[in-house]
Amino acid sequence: MDKFMQAAIDEAKLGLAEGGIPIGSVLVHNGEIIGRGHNKRVQSGSPILHGEMDALENAGRQPARVYKESTLYTTLSPCSMCSGTILLYGIPKVVIGENQTFMGEESLLTSRGVNAQVLHNQECITLMNDFIRDKPELWNEDIGE
Amino acid sequence: MDKFMQAAIDEAKLGLAEGGIPIGSVLVHNGEIIGRGHNKRVQSGSPILHGEMDALENAGRQPARVYKESTLYTTLSPCSMCSGTILLYGIPKVVIGENQTFMGEESLLTSRGVNAQVLHNQECITLMNDFIRDKPELWNEDIGE
Repeated sequence: MDKFMQAAIDEAKLGLAEGGIPIGSVLVHNGEIIGRGHNKRVQSGSPILHGEMDALENAGRQPARVYKESTLYTTLSPCSMCSGTILLYGIPKVVIGENQTFMGEESLLTSRGVNAQVLHNQECITLMNDFIRDKPELWNEDIGE
Repeated sequence: MDKFMQAAIDEAKLGLAEGGIPIGSVLVHNGEIIGRGHNKRVQSGSPILHGEMDALENAGRQPARVYKESTLYTTLSPCSMCSGTILLYGIPKVVIGENQTFMGEESLLTSRGVNAQVLHNQECITLMNDFIRDKPELWNEDIGE
């Protein structure tokens, strides 16, 4: 298992333990994690802190160059908000745990030149399947449905 | 002047007075402002709190129905992050102060059925022109350049 995807999964599990939505993300630059995050809808009452957004927020203000040399790891296919953020900052590569329980804007990312790699990771799939089964209303809220 | 665009401009000016980037936004539902915000890059050290994102964050968790009945007012053409967020939540209409100093993802929004109306408001244009002239590095950071 890629250690960075493992770190994203650890974030997802941390979110679940907090009563939240189990999606985690890490931003990696030069082989180091510069931001970790997980979905904070429940914990912070936030409609914008998806896992990817929380990782970027926790990385803080970075020069444009850093984003353009970084890879974002996320346990779930990034939605249009998170994909738009990847495009804003020109993050060139996204490693995605799975896209079976939710297909985000991978086509948009790819069409704009982002390298989107999907791992089809079983642990990520199970985390989301269990969560969607247990709290469907919360999941629908998170994806605007 | 539309009172909701005026409220967005007031937010932009508040941000400027705080030493921040002068972009403001309000989310309007059923003729009432349910969230106000302005860019907080400087004030909160945040790479994700653009004006639109801050307005949504301040509106808090809303049912999907509310977003789908709302209009987002923003002083500047929404970047890919903010446009992706508009798409995530299915906000059907965006009223934009100006797109002369920065052209966001209006084409993407329109292609997905969002009604994007541009006011070409001179006060919004002047706010941004003055800001970009005075703090070009800060502005470039905000748009990932």
